[in-house]
Amino acid sequence: MQHTHTYLINGDFNQAISPLDRGFAYGDGVFRTMVIRSGLPVNWPLHYQKLVADCAAIGIVCPSAGLLMSDFLQLFSIEDVDSEKQEVAKIMITRGEGERGYKPPAVTTPTRVIIKSAMPQYAKESYAGGVQLHVCNTRLSSQVKLAGVKHLNRLENILARMEWRDEGIFDGVLLDQQGNVIECTMSNIFARFDKVLVTPDLSECGVAGITRQRICDVSSALNLTAEVAQLSLSRMLQADELIICNSLYGAFQVSKIGDTTWVQQALAKTFRNLLSYD
Amino acid sequence: MQHTHTYLINGDFNQAISPLDRGFAYGDGVFRTMVIRSGLPVNWPLHYQKLVADCAAIGIVCPSAGLLMSDFLQLFSIEDVDSEKQEVAKIMITRGEGERGYKPPAVTTPTRVIIKSAMPQYAKESYAGGVQLHVCNTRLSSQVKLAGVKHLNRLENILARMEWRDEGIFDGVLLDQQGNVIECTMSNIFARFDKVLVTPDLSECGVAGITRQRICDVSSALNLTAEVAQLSLSRMLQADELIICNSLYGAFQVSKIGDTTWVQQALAKTFRNLLSYD
Repeated sequence: MQHTHTYLINGDFNQAISPLDRGFAYGDGVFRTMVIRSGLPVNWPLHYQKLVADCAAIGIVCPSAGLLMSDFLQLFSIEDVDSEKQEVAKIMITRGEGERGYKPPAVTTPTRVIIKSAMPQYAKESYAGGVQLHVCNTRLSSQVKLAGVKHLNRLENILARMEWRDEGIFDGVLLDQQGNVIECTMSNIFARFDKVLVTPDLSECGVAGITRQRICDVSSALNLTAEVAQLSLSRMLQADELIICNSLYGAFQVSKIGDTTWVQQALAKTFRNLLSYD
Repeated sequence: MQHTHTYLINGDFNQAISPLDRGFAYGDGVFRTMVIRSGLPVNWPLHYQKLVADCAAIGIVCPSAGLLMSDFLQLFSIEDVDSEKQEVAKIMITRGEGERGYKPPAVTTPTRVIIKSAMPQYAKESYAGGVQLHVCNTRLSSQVKLAGVKHLNRLENILARMEWRDEGIFDGVLLDQQGNVIECTMSNIFARFDKVLVTPDLSECGVAGITRQRICDVSSALNLTAEVAQLSLSRMLQADELIICNSLYGAFQVSKIGDTTWVQQALAKTFRNLLSYD
């Protein structure tokens, strides 16, 4: 069975988005990106749980897991379980269509979109030697009502990502208005200081990814203490080891930020193994 | 000639929005709302100038005024100039379609959308006695790179607008993180103290609307000094007269915020007259 379509909207291959959709009009929705392995979403329970929580943060009732799973089965082929084939799914849930004006309609039907794309080909050096980061001038704004949520208002990430064109730079470090490290444009961050693994506090800004949560959860197995804390840029640059993570590549070591370099160590690879990314 | 269509996408009545459009994916675009009178956009030069500036703020090249005007002529009927018919046009410009990821494509074709809707019917009391405002708990975040720009990342306005259901409340006052007044969810604000007309400084957040600019420009004709300044909520509540404005209704006096009330005065009506809204 061939799956040549790239996306599915409300379970239908022939749909499109209305310009009256509040996702288009206002970024009134949330999204997630995940690996599809052998035709099925990897870590689906965690992704679905986060999708429901993010929808709830802005007052959207998330479509059921069953409905979304039936969409996955329409868009992706369930492969032989021995297959190594990996693809990427992006799920977007918006509040649905509405009239002009910020006030949500009294009754709305959320729009659900699943987009299929190819798994990115990460450079071998990213696995072997680590990745280089840029420190972005664009700083994240503080908004407690949206902090942690992967919503569709992503202009800050775009402005930050537009700051560099050097393809040797993998991602950009985002600071908050006070100059504390929060995350990267598409990754979360962990800084290891001896046996303590610090990840920035995301209570005012940033996206709390599920791979960040999974790394916190498995760190004790490595005799590391995961700690959510404020992390200044200067302190981060003194870390014994620096790791970034997301749901597609798992974890990479950071090898270079500006003039600061780190020698290759084992933690990123260990996390990839533990989280089944290698 | 009948114009039953509600919107036009890239000059075509039969188009829809792709979920790959960055306006949908990330809110990567800007918009404006304006009155259409006798089939033509009111204050079009100012609107177009602001549209170009807002596009430039996020690195989008705005389509030409001629192209947008040809869209208006397709979507709206040019009426007899004696006609009093008013409609509303919303223009949205996005960066166009792109692959997954925050990095804009090297070459993009902006998506332009014009949506037609009916002119809101404002209550007679809004003109006669003024309007009531709610003070929102949702506070605006600070982002110098996006301040003043009417972009498509509007979740803060939505969360703020969801705070009240009382139809007697016309709009909600938005404060910044420090508690200074910035604007309302769909309006700008002017507070008159004797002969000084203060409007909040928007260098860190808020939308700098063209009616705000027009009011600043005409205020000297009324022997008022327009002043852009920081304005705390407590100071605003002590104003001799409070006015809100936008491109659809022009200007309304504020009659009530919480326990604070203002008697009816002439300034809002004077501005409506000066700006041709009555």
